[in-house]
Amino acid sequence: MFGKILIANRGEIAMRILRACRTLGIRAVAIHSDVDASAPHVRFADEAVCVGPADPRRSYLNIPQIIAAAEITGADAVHPGYGFLSENAEFADLCRRCGLTFIGPTPEAMRLWGDKVRAREAAKRFGLPLLPGTTVLRDGDDAAAQAAVVGYPVILKAAGGGGGRGMRVVRDESEIRRAFETATSEALAGFKNPDVYLEKFVEEPRHIELQVLGDNHGHIFTFGERECSLQRRHQKIIEEAPSPAMTPEKRAELSAACTRALVETGYTSLGTLEFLMDERGNLYFMEMNTRVQVEHPVTEMVTGIDLVENQIRAAVGESLNLPSGRALGLRGHAMECRINAEDPRTFVPWPGLITEYLPPGGGGVRVESGVYGGFRVPNNYDPMLAKVITHGATRAEAIARMRSALDEFIIGGIRTNIPLHQALLRDPDVVAGKMSTRTIERLRF
Amino acid sequence: MFGKILIANRGEIAMRILRACRTLGIRAVAIHSDVDASAPHVRFADEAVCVGPADPRRSYLNIPQIIAAAEITGADAVHPGYGFLSENAEFADLCRRCGLTFIGPTPEAMRLWGDKVRAREAAKRFGLPLLPGTTVLRDGDDAAAQAAVVGYPVILKAAGGGGGRGMRVVRDESEIRRAFETATSEALAGFKNPDVYLEKFVEEPRHIELQVLGDNHGHIFTFGERECSLQRRHQKIIEEAPSPAMTPEKRAELSAACTRALVETGYTSLGTLEFLMDERGNLYFMEMNTRVQVEHPVTEMVTGIDLVENQIRAAVGESLNLPSGRALGLRGHAMECRINAEDPRTFVPWPGLITEYLPPGGGGVRVESGVYGGFRVPNNYDPMLAKVITHGATRAEAIARMRSALDEFIIGGIRTNIPLHQALLRDPDVVAGKMSTRTIERLRF
Repeated sequence: MFGKILIANRGEIAMRILRACRTLGIRAVAIHSDVDASAPHVRFADEAVCVGPADPRRSYLNIPQIIAAAEITGADAVHPGYGFLSENAEFADLCRRCGLTFIGPTPEAMRLWGDKVRAREAAKRFGLPLLPGTTVLRDGDDAAAQAAVVGYPVILKAAGGGGGRGMRVVRDESEIRRAFETATSEALAGFKNPDVYLEKFVEEPRHIELQVLGDNHGHIFTFGERECSLQRRHQKIIEEAPSPAMTPEKRAELSAACTRALVETGYTSLGTLEFLMDERGNLYFMEMNTRVQVEHPVTEMVTGIDLVENQIRAAVGESLNLPSGRALGLRGHAMECRINAEDPRTFVPWPGLITEYLPPGGGGVRVESGVYGGFRVPNNYDPMLAKVITHGATRAEAIARMRSALDEFIIGGIRTNIPLHQALLRDPDVVAGKMSTRTIERLRF
Repeated sequence: MFGKILIANRGEIAMRILRACRTLGIRAVAIHSDVDASAPHVRFADEAVCVGPADPRRSYLNIPQIIAAAEITGADAVHPGYGFLSENAEFADLCRRCGLTFIGPTPEAMRLWGDKVRAREAAKRFGLPLLPGTTVLRDGDDAAAQAAVVGYPVILKAAGGGGGRGMRVVRDESEIRRAFETATSEALAGFKNPDVYLEKFVEEPRHIELQVLGDNHGHIFTFGERECSLQRRHQKIIEEAPSPAMTPEKRAELSAACTRALVETGYTSLGTLEFLMDERGNLYFMEMNTRVQVEHPVTEMVTGIDLVENQIRAAVGESLNLPSGRALGLRGHAMECRINAEDPRTFVPWPGLITEYLPPGGGGVRVESGVYGGFRVPNNYDPMLAKVITHGATRAEAIARMRSALDEFIIGGIRTNIPLHQALLRDPDVVAGKMSTRTIERLRF
């Protein structure tokens, strides 16, 4: 086992990794920016190194400083968490060259799955279902012809970039040529690249993702799906496992397909394959994340498997022996709410001093927190303060426990999105398990 | 289901019951003494009634005030928790006469099992193993005569109650008469009942107990054992499930014997049968507690069964359908540390203002707490502030998580017994699972 791990992250995920180190008997080195000097991950780590000022580019993304911190403290390995350097193949490469184990997949796997076009090709090659779509369109007539094949509604997308620019939903043929012209000129203006392609448009998609783990001995384990449809501005805020929209048959099929794809490409760490589910329950591959995910605890709650501990075991070269796919034996239902420092209606970030802090407790309640009472939340980073995860024998029990836990959670001095979560957990569609990625935009509270 | 429950308790167990009410959709009424006006159970309940001043006899034991509070608030039922009125059959009787459901067994069952001499007789009748011992002793001479038959060492015990009061170990005949007088007067002072009996004394016993639950439909469920050998001054401070000293065969045998005894006596609520295990692994029935136990969460963690919710379901008259005995499927290992406001070496209580409070979090960690930062711990009640419960795939993992959780737990302004727990979890005998009720008295730290 590793003797010492440097945790190249902050907030709740740094605490999460720190706890996994404790359970495995590994010493943990924290890194931090100057504004995070009194953050919990610094307070509880065995050693801590300041790697720069508040600006993430000069601290949590400051590769030379982080590598130097690992070398000075004698760390054997680096855990990148999520965000920051977690999907940076160059950083993973550099760790390797410096004799540090990067706790994640190989740089080659990161490059493959990190490139959306290559990832789509790989998914297609290994038989994962993809949304019907096209390559780059020649002109308005080509768009009309291909849209007729794919079937309306379709969405036009810029090949050169995202964020809504160059995107147009088209519902019938009368709009397609004009939409093509608009999308093309927006794409040219926005990305200096007029290329546009189209995909089948799903009106009310669900977000479904499969948790996987590989080791260096050719094993691929799948741990069931999570549903993450409840999103605000394309960011997940409530996740659950299992998905109310899945069946054991569909889960087994998805697990088998993903296992085949990852055995073929030789995946060796934690990862998540993200799918879009249409109104009829068809799943389409979107992308793969080659790192631990914010919402991993819901999978841990229903499987009883510690994903971060096993990710570390895989990185050190252990041959893992875990239940997978059909043999998993899912137990009950779990739900996670991301508690953000933000206005619950406008989503405007709300950093500042936490004057009072009391996390909820009791049975079936897990809290992953990166703050405490008296901590000043910096305005330089993601506004997530903590995650509340609840488990119950049924989905209804997990929801009841979540409602109770949110009612108990006291965070004074700043605004949080707890009222949004409370409204969502009273919403009849959410309670009935009928969600889509558009549920939140229609919510009034 | 009940519409509203009055919780006749305080501290962490009041919060525990409150959370069960939330999950079941039941409104909860808190009662409190004047010094507890800002206690968490008051802060989080739907309604709260002050039932008297700090002195427990005038508040948490003040039966007329508590019944009046239930009537004023329109509660359907009363949950007594543990301690206070939880084993008071007169209170249970009075609740029944006032049309309130007492969430516990019948007053008849409470009287049977609450009287240690009758309980021993019942246990004997139903085939539970007993330590060689006597019925109530007449006087010092009777004690001497009977001790000679049983064989020294013996232990004198109060028939009317536990917790160390009225208990005396006697190693030879020269001490027996004086010990009888002391035990009798302590019993009278402590329990208003001078009756004392004696039993064979085991030098290095383990404390093993079996969790049971009955309903009103003749079902008795057993949920495996807990080991509670780590005690300071006869009070448990670390408990775990399963016991490192038990085997599946022994567990099945014990479960079957207890089920028989409780089916015969018609037990209808939560209860715990306490056994002493001698150095050779023989089990002897000691007593039964007819209420929820402080250490019930460790059983919940390894069975996945919510004991308090099911206790409430049984009380409302539901026919329960739960796994039991051999069919239980225990999962992993759980451990609980009771966090007391006391000096860790002298056990002198240490009430006062909690200036900083940050409970531990993360996977496999559960906290049941009755305090928060800014709360003033009164000096009128039990010094227990909170319980930390950890779960792991193995006992070693549960211990590793507990060590980490205790290291994280911040309680400022008062002394706590966390250093004692940390020393115990480093002790080679404890780590090896070789404990007895005398382990703590030999610990040096």
